[in-house]
Amino acid sequence: MPTLERSGDVFVLDLGDTENRFHPDWLSAVGAALDEVEGADGPRALVTTATGKFFSNGLDLDWLGAHPDQHEGYLADVHALLARVLSLPVVTVAALQGHTFAAAAMLSLAHDLRVMRADRGFWCLPEADIGMPFTPGMSALIQARLAPQTAHVAMTTARRYGGDDALAAGIVDHAVPADAVRATALELAAAQAGTAGTTLATIKDRMYRPVLDLLRDHTDPRA
Amino acid sequence: MPTLERSGDVFVLDLGDTENRFHPDWLSAVGAALDEVEGADGPRALVTTATGKFFSNGLDLDWLGAHPDQHEGYLADVHALLARVLSLPVVTVAALQGHTFAAAAMLSLAHDLRVMRADRGFWCLPEADIGMPFTPGMSALIQARLAPQTAHVAMTTARRYGGDDALAAGIVDHAVPADAVRATALELAAAQAGTAGTTLATIKDRMYRPVLDLLRDHTDPRA
Amino acid sequence: MPTLERSGDVFVLDLGDTENRFHPDWLSAVGAALDEVEGADGPRALVTTATGKFFSNGLDLDWLGAHPDQHEGYLADVHALLARVLSLPVVTVAALQGHTFAAAAMLSLAHDLRVMRADRGFWCLPEADIGMPFTPGMSALIQARLAPQTAHVAMTTARRYGGDDALAAGIVDHAVPADAVRATALELAAAQAGTAGTTLATIKDRMYRPVLDLLRDHTDPRA
Repeated sequence: MPTLERSGDVFVLDLGDTENRFHPDWLSAVGAALDEVEGADGPRALVTTATGKFFSNGLDLDWLGAHPDQHEGYLADVHALLARVLSLPVVTVAALQGHTFAAAAMLSLAHDLRVMRADRGFWCLPEADIGMPFTPGMSALIQARLAPQTAHVAMTTARRYGGDDALAAGIVDHAVPADAVRATALELAAAQAGTAGTTLATIKDRMYRPVLDLLRDHTDPRA
Repeated sequence: MPTLERSGDVFVLDLGDTENRFHPDWLSAVGAALDEVEGADGPRALVTTATGKFFSNGLDLDWLGAHPDQHEGYLADVHALLARVLSLPVVTVAALQGHTFAAAAMLSLAHDLRVMRADRGFWCLPEADIGMPFTPGMSALIQARLAPQTAHVAMTTARRYGGDDALAAGIVDHAVPADAVRATALELAAAQAGTAGTTLATIKDRMYRPVLDLLRDHTDPRA
Repeated sequence: MPTLERSGDVFVLDLGDTENRFHPDWLSAVGAALDEVEGADGPRALVTTATGKFFSNGLDLDWLGAHPDQHEGYLADVHALLARVLSLPVVTVAALQGHTFAAAAMLSLAHDLRVMRADRGFWCLPEADIGMPFTPGMSALIQARLAPQTAHVAMTTARRYGGDDALAAGIVDHAVPADAVRATALELAAAQAGTAGTTLATIKDRMYRPVLDLLRDHTDPRA
């Protein structure tokens, strides 16, 4: 389960040491961690990372399959998480130490900066291959954060990007050795801790107003 | 005139061996070819190319000059073609073996991927030089598919991009020797044939909804 | 104070030899210069530059502090300037020979092309650091002219870009030695002087319609 620690001005959110799929309990724990980051005072920033082979594999398809009647509320909660991270009033850095797939790739794009392990692991939006189209809010988020042809290729061909490919495509800001992922993210976050506050919140809110509206007003387009 | 052949899972649309301007009969033939691609079942993809010195030079200005009263319907048909290719439920690759100008450059941008001959031939939007502003739908298409400053320079300065320049600017995805253009495009298309279907259609439709709306609702802004 | 000279087909607007902040008198002088450029006939282009250590440091915070009651009208005038340069019916080149900060960085983005001194001077949006969020119009302008992650980093981290960094990030089109900044800009502008006119005006207007609407309809969002 997700845990939150603080190292100086930087909160470190560890998403877990399994596939770290978005189970409802996992979503609650992440939400509580974000409450703590948002509610704190003074200089602060957030690094989101995980332990082991996966950053996260995204939606919890097993849970979804077992709870078909809660499909809509679950997706609304996922959209709310993406909106919340995208508009968090502190600088956020995703430290991608392992595989980052589907909704987890979107979660990484909701952060301000991304650091990825260079030698192993993939960043991938497999939706075109597995028959799950992006919702309008997800589509808007990805398109707002990537260059047009990068978004197009990632979304229509399900390409798997290694660290160096992701850097070249502008999906991540840094690709570094495995043992430098977390430290690089911490350094980037600490350098921006002084920016936390209402000005940053307003800047992000105005930059991504149409995306945030789609994410927050999400209702299942299949309904 | 345009012809359609099938090679394994890949349909190959050859736009012709002249300047391949968008004459009404040419538009009808291309539309019939797209009907066949769209109506087929199973894994499939599309490569659009041509034979000889030109991919296409775009609008048929001679025909337009001779039919001033059909101006509006003609432009609506061109917009409908751009919208249709942009939202086609199969992966599409433009193999630019020759000059690609004006509306043909836009048609290339409506494809998912572009392969261009490296050593000869230009990709160019000459509209700023020839006194024909882009329609709102055309402008939206170009801006949705290129990085902001690439779109700006291409649209306001009528710059002619050779293959390597187009690759560096992100206008095309690959610049290869003349004899490798079609083969490269076929290979890229074949690798994505399994993606054809309703999920891909929904992904494209949501990504480009505002562009598609402008293209499909086109009425001459000068009217 | 700003001065306008003509060199062949190219008008050269010099913003001054101080910090060149946007004092109301400075805004009037720049507006009068743009009237002259816009009102002229035939082939023409515009280079905007300055003399000395600064291109411009943006808003005149001293004047604003002394005239709290004129805050709203002042900001509307600044937005009108940005909108006017963004839609000017001639090709515009910003020659950034010195520091380019805040609203002046936005003014540079309203130009078609940017040339920056490579060895000294910074391009920077310090708003996140100084507690002044971008207005919706300013945000839209910056986001329309830069790649998504470049805009995001520039706007949320107040990063200072030297010439080579700005070139690598796509913020400027050329980074050249100090003594080549003005000459390079003049050459680029002269090459595009023939494009001046209503077609170019329409192209720009359609490309940036939503940005222009926000800039022209600006009212202080804090009001």
